[in-house]
Amino acid sequence: MKEKYKKKEIRILGIDDSPFDKFNDKEVLVIGVFYRGGNYPDGVLSTKVEIDGGDSTIKLIEMVNKSKFKSQLQCIMLDGIALGGFNVVNIEKLNSETGIPVIVVMRYYPDLKKMFDAMKKLGYDNKIKLIEKAGKIYKIYKIYIQIKGIGLEDAKEIIKISSIHSYIPEPIRVAHLIGAGLVKGESKGKA
Amino acid sequence: MKEKYKKKEIRILGIDDSPFDKFNDKEVLVIGVFYRGGNYPDGVLSTKVEIDGGDSTIKLIEMVNKSKFKSQLQCIMLDGIALGGFNVVNIEKLNSETGIPVIVVMRYYPDLKKMFDAMKKLGYDNKIKLIEKAGKIYKIYKIYIQIKGIGLEDAKEIIKISSIHSYIPEPIRVAHLIGAGLVKGESKGKA
Repeated sequence: MKEKYKKKEIRILGIDDSPFDKFNDKEVLVIGVFYRGGNYPDGVLSTKVEIDGGDSTIKLIEMVNKSKFKSQLQCIMLDGIALGGFNVVNIEKLNSETGIPVIVVMRYYPDLKKMFDAMKKLGYDNKIKLIEKAGKIYKIYKIYIQIKGIGLEDAKEIIKISSIHSYIPEPIRVAHLIGAGLVKGESKGKA
Repeated sequence: MKEKYKKKEIRILGIDDSPFDKFNDKEVLVIGVFYRGGNYPDGVLSTKVEIDGGDSTIKLIEMVNKSKFKSQLQCIMLDGIALGGFNVVNIEKLNSETGIPVIVVMRYYPDLKKMFDAMKKLGYDNKIKLIEKAGKIYKIYKIYIQIKGIGLEDAKEIIKISSIHSYIPEPIRVAHLIGAGLVKGESKGKA
């Protein structure tokens, strides 16, 4: 099979938030890790977003667009569609404003009914719409994804190239390790 | 040649400080990155030390000794012997109190006369002694090292195993990327 992406050249940005205290913190640290060749980190970005706020999309767009690596970036991977609790990312806008394909990575199939019920009680109807607009959830190997600006076959190839040491793509796994290690002093093993 | 360390098993902790503003900051963030198999990160630690202070040795000992990965750790690598300006690490004590070999990595041969002159003016005579006690500076490939609790041949093998994408060992290169990315929002390319 002809492969579109070159393992040694592809550059992926993995994004995850850090642990936070939902009763006391107002903002959460967000980590972006550039992976080169699918197998080693060669840059780190960071920003902050409001917990349960609405600024994650604009903060991510800014973080990506001002980065020196942007011209070489082929994919943005998010560890879930929301940062800092219910700060839901508009992945359509993230894709259109950066020009970079977006893959949302989930370890489990989300319980959307439970999530939407909780969000309705909080008056987050607009955020529910963002999650619905993010499109179909596909199972790829052992994980689940949503995609924007990229086809399913291409997304599958990128997931395969970048998932080297576990079934979680390295850029996401390492963004998680960094966030946890900084906030808690030591990261937990599981991404 | 028989190799003592197994590339796929060796666990190294790379430590570097972050950028800081020496006129306004009191503390600096210190990052530790666990590398597994010499080629991928599998844990992140962090602590803070006083800029130009004297707490770096005790803070690193605490950070290492409370880590869940400590029992598997075979080498601590420091990006230079001082963190946060002149917060010089007592590498003999770091080695004896953790039981882990220590390698100090330097990109260039340090200008000790210039450094010591500056330190004398600041009254840092004790810190000068720590640097002198850190022992001989060896050239290994393109970098310079000081070692404690490990022989030169073993240190050379660990440097070789862990320097994969540049002449800087990966644990040090990535600790630097993280520190810079967090403090400045984006890391610079050079470790």
